Amino acid sequence: MNKKIAVLPGDGIGREVAKGAVSVLQAVGERFGHQFSFTFAGIGGSAIQASGTPLPQETVEICRKSDAVLLGAVGGPKWDHLPGHLRPEKGLLGIRKELNLYANLRPVHYYSSISETSPLRKEVIEGADMLVVRELTGGLYFGKPSGRSRKNGEDSVVDTLFYKKEEMDRVIRLAFRLAEKRRGKVTSVDKANVLESSRMWRETAEEIGREFPHVKLEHMLVDNAAMQMIKAPRQFDVIVTENMFGDILSDEASVLTGSLGMLPSASLSENGPYLYEPIHGSAPDIEGKDTANPIAMILSAAMMLRISFGMEEEAKAIENAVKQVLDAGCRTVDIVPFGRRPIGTAEMIEEIKATI
Amino acid sequence: MNKKIAVLPGDGIGREVAKGAVSVLQAVGERFGHQFSFTFAGIGGSAIQASGTPLPQETVEICRKSDAVLLGAVGGPKWDHLPGHLRPEKGLLGIRKELNLYANLRPVHYYSSISETSPLRKEVIEGADMLVVRELTGGLYFGKPSGRSRKNGEDSVVDTLFYKKEEMDRVIRLAFRLAEKRRGKVTSVDKANVLESSRMWRETAEEIGREFPHVKLEHMLVDNAAMQMIKAPRQFDVIVTENMFGDILSDEASVLTGSLGMLPSASLSENGPYLYEPIHGSAPDIEGKDTANPIAMILSAAMMLRISFGMEEEAKAIENAVKQVLDAGCRTVDIVPFGRRPIGTAEMIEEIKATI
Ligand SMILES: CC(C)[C@H](C(=O)O)[C@@H](O)C(=O)O
Ligand SMILES: CC(C)[C@H](C(=O)O)[C@@H](O)C(=O)O
Repeated sequence: MNKKIAVLPGDGIGREVAKGAVSVLQAVGERFGHQFSFTFAGIGGSAIQASGTPLPQETVEICRKSDAVLLGAVGGPKWDHLPGHLRPEKGLLGIRKELNLYANLRPVHYYSSISETSPLRKEVIEGADMLVVRELTGGLYFGKPSGRSRKNGEDSVVDTLFYKKEEMDRVIRLAFRLAEKRRGKVTSVDKANVLESSRMWRETAEEIGREFPHVKLEHMLVDNAAMQMIKAPRQFDVIVTENMFGDILSDEASVLTGSLGMLPSASLSENGPYLYEPIHGSAPDIEGKDTANPIAMILSAAMMLRISFGMEEEAKAIENAVKQVLDAGCRTVDIVPFGRRPIGTAEMIEEIKATI
Repeated sequence: MNKKIAVLPGDGIGREVAKGAVSVLQAVGERFGHQFSFTFAGIGGSAIQASGTPLPQETVEICRKSDAVLLGAVGGPKWDHLPGHLRPEKGLLGIRKELNLYANLRPVHYYSSISETSPLRKEVIEGADMLVVRELTGGLYFGKPSGRSRKNGEDSVVDTLFYKKEEMDRVIRLAFRLAEKRRGKVTSVDKANVLESSRMWRETAEEIGREFPHVKLEHMLVDNAAMQMIKAPRQFDVIVTENMFGDILSDEASVLTGSLGMLPSASLSENGPYLYEPIHGSAPDIEGKDTANPIAMILSAAMMLRISFGMEEEAKAIENAVKQVLDAGCRTVDIVPFGRRPIGTAEMIEEIKATI
């Protein structure tokens, strides 16, 4: 097959890990006889530096013309002083909105080979395997009004949590579809004892739940969910929630297993192209040091092969290569056990490539 | 001294633990020669049943005339079908607003005597000791508009995150004052890379930080904070954040040490009366079973003695009694080690009373 992939490395370690994904995909292309063509485009802080905007129109067009998008990470202290509309994060939020990527999928699972890196006791975390589905283009992130005002000498500020019912509908339905293919349970997270939007969310989940009688639906308040994830992470299969709650809970979930540097994500729309990115950020503190873990980005590429291109065997080839390399003891510094020698980003990429 | 205390037992196990606090306070009164007079008043679901509203005006008046308020917990599935304005939680939100309780203080610390109950590895959690200061009367909880609408056949819903700058100001200043008496560090949590309200929050924290040059101020994004609490909880001293983030993070913090059933909280206003309540909820599933842990409520009473009445020695007497009883091996079911016999709520209360 012939596939066009847009690559948006972004900032910080995003640039290092994106390079890794591209070279691993080239290896996959050679082995399986596919043609992957890569078009690089700017986003985030580096795009601000190069062209004065965190999301150049050209980047949006390149993405739209591609079959899938790979993104590294955006942000860094260099751009923290800039006004709101000129921050690297606006590039990320902008591309989500432009491509209508309404659902962010974050699978979190326990790797027994790196069990020592989890902050949780082994008996609590062992075997945990959940998928967080986060609504990605609504809620507090995009609602209007959002801004300051001054009345009678008093400063105040407002942000708006706005949802159309149909925006809740589509992401919750997707969560149910995904649960059907997993262990058949959806935990819908809200704050229905306080927020009107959460009460509509809960009703919508109930309605959609009736279309999937063989999937178990459970509601959980967001504060309780933040506790349950730590106390009993194995209870979760698919978790679905709105944008801001999803931002917090999916990051919380991602450290439970100790493998933040290994977790991929996929962001889906109705008609594609979809976007794939690691869960971790741009980590400006370790930029250029060849210590970043490239596995999250490489596994994001595997998700792309499976979900966007239907290349199950090829996706498996990457996932198996990662597993083998880990089993062989290769570790970047974030997952290395105490007293063992870590390898660098480039070496990890080479090991995975060689195994494919 | 003579002190008037309003007691709002509320629902579920709130009723059982409130009784415990009252009887422990009576023991303290006898030993130290104080007169505590208790006035009971309704709130939450039980108030809905008794008088048709989750917060009767009489309750507000009793609280206003008291020197401090003790609250059990509110809520339960019995009232989940009721419309928004008639839910038990409205009683809790209502009393916070009526008494202008703008800051909720939740100290979380590690008890080595119950270290086995923490889901975290001992080397991660040992020695953790943080104070979460949550803004309690603003943000998404109270902003207007909050409601549904229908336009062109499309349903939508809105909630509003609104803050006056001065509301940020007072709670952040309180956090700095508290940090001065602790280890001198404030972590201000926001989502300044996305929300306007968070950008104002961060600026306000910076401004107030300049008034406290000897307190270290650090900013942390809420998603990162949700991770850092699990990965490295010892890094935190005082955490200050807005209402909804505080709801989520303080619950997350409270399970880290494994002692949710032991954690008290205090809610403060400018001029009092202050309100004290356990962190846990009404736990309707264990209501009436004599298995609830009364320690969180009893330690909330100790906070009341210290903060509202300036009775340091008396507060210490309660805290020491709790410590002794735990050291002697008394455990309710939530903190009992595997294979040991738990004691009931009433027995735990008696043990603590007897020790005072
Ligand atoms: C960088 C930031 C805007 C973004 C978000 O909050 O969505 C990030 O935290 C994420 O989760 O992808
Ligand atoms: C019961 C609920 C309204 C309340 C809140 O969200 O504030 C509770 O979770 C709390 O933290 O005290």
